Amino acid sequence: MPLQDHQLFIEAFSPHEGHVHGVTGILASRRSPFQLIEVVELGSYGRALILDGKVQSTTLDEFIYHESIIHPAMLCHPNPRRVFVVGGGEGTPLREILKHRGVEHALLVDIDSEVVELCRRHLPEMSAGAFDDPRVRVEFMNARTFLETSEETFDTMIIDISEPVEEGPAYLLYTQEFYRIVYDRLTEHGTLAVQAGTISLADLECFATIHSTIRSVFPVVAPYFADIPSFGRPWGFVLASKGRNPAAADRGEIDRMVEARLRGPLRYYDGETHTMMFALPKHVRERLAAETRVIEDNHPLFAFR
Amino acid sequence: MPLQDHQLFIEAFSPHEGHVHGVTGILASRRSPFQLIEVVELGSYGRALILDGKVQSTTLDEFIYHESIIHPAMLCHPNPRRVFVVGGGEGTPLREILKHRGVEHALLVDIDSEVVELCRRHLPEMSAGAFDDPRVRVEFMNARTFLETSEETFDTMIIDISEPVEEGPAYLLYTQEFYRIVYDRLTEHGTLAVQAGTISLADLECFATIHSTIRSVFPVVAPYFADIPSFGRPWGFVLASKGRNPAAADRGEIDRMVEARLRGPLRYYDGETHTMMFALPKHVRERLAAETRVIEDNHPLFAFR
Amino acid sequence: MPLQDHQLFIEAFSPHEGHVHGVTGILASRRSPFQLIEVVELGSYGRALILDGKVQSTTLDEFIYHESIIHPAMLCHPNPRRVFVVGGGEGTPLREILKHRGVEHALLVDIDSEVVELCRRHLPEMSAGAFDDPRVRVEFMNARTFLETSEETFDTMIIDISEPVEEGPAYLLYTQEFYRIVYDRLTEHGTLAVQAGTISLADLECFATIHSTIRSVFPVVAPYFADIPSFGRPWGFVLASKGRNPAAADRGEIDRMVEARLRGPLRYYDGETHTMMFALPKHVRERLAAETRVIEDNHPLFAFR
Amino acid sequence: MPLQDHQLFIEAFSPHEGHVHGVTGILASRRSPFQLIEVVELGSYGRALILDGKVQSTTLDEFIYHESIIHPAMLCHPNPRRVFVVGGGEGTPLREILKHRGVEHALLVDIDSEVVELCRRHLPEMSAGAFDDPRVRVEFMNARTFLETSEETFDTMIIDISEPVEEGPAYLLYTQEFYRIVYDRLTEHGTLAVQAGTISLADLECFATIHSTIRSVFPVVAPYFADIPSFGRPWGFVLASKGRNPAAADRGEIDRMVEARLRGPLRYYDGETHTMMFALPKHVRERLAAETRVIEDNHPLFAFR
Repeated sequence: MPLQDHQLFIEAFSPHEGHVHGVTGILASRRSPFQLIEVVELGSYGRALILDGKVQSTTLDEFIYHESIIHPAMLCHPNPRRVFVVGGGEGTPLREILKHRGVEHALLVDIDSEVVELCRRHLPEMSAGAFDDPRVRVEFMNARTFLETSEETFDTMIIDISEPVEEGPAYLLYTQEFYRIVYDRLTEHGTLAVQAGTISLADLECFATIHSTIRSVFPVVAPYFADIPSFGRPWGFVLASKGRNPAAADRGEIDRMVEARLRGPLRYYDGETHTMMFALPKHVRERLAAETRVIEDNHPLFAFR
Repeated sequence: MPLQDHQLFIEAFSPHEGHVHGVTGILASRRSPFQLIEVVELGSYGRALILDGKVQSTTLDEFIYHESIIHPAMLCHPNPRRVFVVGGGEGTPLREILKHRGVEHALLVDIDSEVVELCRRHLPEMSAGAFDDPRVRVEFMNARTFLETSEETFDTMIIDISEPVEEGPAYLLYTQEFYRIVYDRLTEHGTLAVQAGTISLADLECFATIHSTIRSVFPVVAPYFADIPSFGRPWGFVLASKGRNPAAADRGEIDRMVEARLRGPLRYYDGETHTMMFALPKHVRERLAAETRVIEDNHPLFAFR
Repeated sequence: MPLQDHQLFIEAFSPHEGHVHGVTGILASRRSPFQLIEVVELGSYGRALILDGKVQSTTLDEFIYHESIIHPAMLCHPNPRRVFVVGGGEGTPLREILKHRGVEHALLVDIDSEVVELCRRHLPEMSAGAFDDPRVRVEFMNARTFLETSEETFDTMIIDISEPVEEGPAYLLYTQEFYRIVYDRLTEHGTLAVQAGTISLADLECFATIHSTIRSVFPVVAPYFADIPSFGRPWGFVLASKGRNPAAADRGEIDRMVEARLRGPLRYYDGETHTMMFALPKHVRERLAAETRVIEDNHPLFAFR
Repeated sequence: MPLQDHQLFIEAFSPHEGHVHGVTGILASRRSPFQLIEVVELGSYGRALILDGKVQSTTLDEFIYHESIIHPAMLCHPNPRRVFVVGGGEGTPLREILKHRGVEHALLVDIDSEVVELCRRHLPEMSAGAFDDPRVRVEFMNARTFLETSEETFDTMIIDISEPVEEGPAYLLYTQEFYRIVYDRLTEHGTLAVQAGTISLADLECFATIHSTIRSVFPVVAPYFADIPSFGRPWGFVLASKGRNPAAADRGEIDRMVEARLRGPLRYYDGETHTMMFALPKHVRERLAAETRVIEDNHPLFAFR
């Protein structure tokens, strides 16, 4: 038996493979100056934000993605007070950041104000009030331009944007030059987390080259992963730091930090989950070790689209 | 851009979700007395065995699945000499079992001789000569009948069959009564590995109930997982044992055992991979802890089809 | 190469066959008390009204459908002044009716006011101002109830609704009892046109039984067809009359009537098209001749859904 | 509800539209030197021959296509004894030709012997013994080469090949130069029938240019159409002749010729069907009248693929 819905959404992973969803409702469909923004109801995942045909977040499982991209980098820093996020217009990264008692300022820079507007209207539980929190500030502009022209510094920085494709400006947020700017804007014990594409065997190039590029700039680099079912494939992240190595933390240490520094427990992330996330399969580690390519402004990376 | 192939194969996960593959060639399509058997070329995964519309193994990534189902259970036993496999007609479980130097006898029981025949012809690298090895024996019959009528015992047993569906006899290989028979046929330090369905958030019932059923029979039970990209979702296994707990083994211990007991290194499994596999996400652990249902012959489990 | 869009709409004709469209934009998606109403942009057909997953009208080819359902029945009557339409909430039947110079009153009865509202907003060229014409009147109610309780009579009546499915009230608009009411509400030379489902070889039952039911009530019955590409299959209609037989009209006669009675030429319908439409393939004629079933309130017809 | 089968075949009409079939069995899948040949079981149409992803013939409805391409051209000739067919490797055109009592010689020229071989094995009812008939001869070669190098002449010629695509040699069988060769090989009252692509509103270019090209060579040209449901769109043909105009024949005349010249009645074609087929919708006639392009060897036509 295949699918019963008459509206299907197909997220293609390659010309020969995809994840197909029955669409049971349409909440919004709008072409902004930057991308096609869709908020739809997927039969198996609830409401979902889809940008240019790629699932970003669903109400069912976004907690896995957002706890993964935020908490390891936050806990790898001794006391992050100022946090910077690129992308994540749903407001979910902000929501997770604000769970840390010590946070004083969280800045979201997103190029597309229409994403934020549509998510606030149709996916309000994703931001859960974060946009109204006095610690939060939002700027709608290119994140690289912001960092190049501002003198602000941050304790933790989060790069939560789609992998670069040929048509968009995002490719300049994945280069060695960009990571050097990020490094300069980070304070002494600063940490960085980057969403880095799938770690599926069939498609490791994006993850491996983002990892090797960050490794060329930061002294400590820890690749990790999570399984977000609505993404259809295991997903990779890179945590970089000026000091601590997150992979060295043991289960109890993480559990104690979550207890001490956050306002209440999480659904996905704890000490045992942390152990899993920072232990990659042997073939993935071998691929990362072998990768030598560094992404540069003049030698960019383009993902499949 | 969606998919470019004109033949598509859709593996439905629910009425609203599926994994879609471009089919670039057909090697065999045959209806046996037990199931529809297809061997096809998938654009992103190479040749694949598909039974009743569910991907079993692909040449690209079957090593992840088969190293996962075989080696943890084999290494959890001090010295497995006699090994029993149900299912796995591709011959891949046998291939992995024979990598263990100490193995003296490996018995494959599969209900469907046509699967073995078609795989030997069209997927010969999956068995890699295992069917011709003098340590191997193959019986084509119902595995429960075999165990009920035989007096043979085994050190490690592997249940590598599809989740039960309403029409088939497989559902009697997932009940408490069946696991009791298995327990009786295992020797003193015996170990068991069972493929146990997806651990995707949207569909945890199968995994949780298989786990709780095995827990009702065995003193030591360790759930674990692997990401096999062609399956489209993270996948669960249950390892049960009469003695050792595999989750207690540290990375170095696993690496030393692989070195000592196997004929050469593996592609996926080693100490770090082991650590990852036996550490489950928090929400999965909570679901397992909460599950109380036990599958019985008269109260069977049926998976989505 | 298959389809390039990531949103697909599939109109299933059977469990094994369908018409698939790339959806390039969503204008509206709303569940009324009666049905799911969608107005979408289809890559190959322009904007489309879709009700419960069935394409009703597209901007590219609706002229074929609407000229087919309106003009043969209007021209088969010597001078239709009062016209009744059931369904057709897009307003396109009204638009075509008003092209006839002699029309004094056109009444649209549609059960679902939300269809009319959404079409007026998103598909205004379909009604082309018809809803504002002083000759037009609209009632939102069940058409059978209307006819049973009203004493109004009409020269031509048009039944432009979907084939009946089990859940809806439409099935009572396809029975012998209903056609008898229609017959009573028609004036002396009255004519009736009914959309009657596909005439595809694989699925002729609906057309054949609607035809045989109308034949049991009217003295003159002429089945005919049109090819509307967005419907994916050739489409059938039944014209019934109290007097003239439309199939007897020759090409020149039709051309002269179009010239004399309409405000300007049409795009699809003329004398030669008329000749084509009323000549059915041999195997369809044989199927119609053989059909004896009559649809009754207590023995209704339900179409595939 | 959409489709229930896990194997789907999609025939794309454009990047945004296609016909989708559930595949319920695979009989053959082979790549010949010329094309991908598939014989599959389609859920709604029975066994089907598919070449390079395009449905050629299905057991359910091939009679409509083959009666349409053969009988009008045969009956438009006073007494066709020698008949030439290009393509049609299923053997169905031969089967229909041999129904004419007067036929003495039928020559099939197909570039691909593997099509004929696979169809004889898996679709034997399509040729129904025609390949064993002593009046039949088969040559496997390029049809243009055959005609350029042979001195044989024919009374009726049938061009039953796919529309030209960029990669194949077929495009040289759709040019003015080719039709001149055909004209020369036809005897005094010779007739020609050509399959000429869809007449769907959205995609009329192929039909219109083939028609205008044949019109530039032959004195009498009659476009016509048929609805073959498995093709998903209404289909066009062009009949050309050195003398008679088929469109002038009335219903009774056709019925009498079928009776007199064929061995038994047909399923689809008779006088009334003939009338329908040669009367095209107004917008199609207008498109044909407006088309001035002539396809030449150096200015070929390429269809969507």
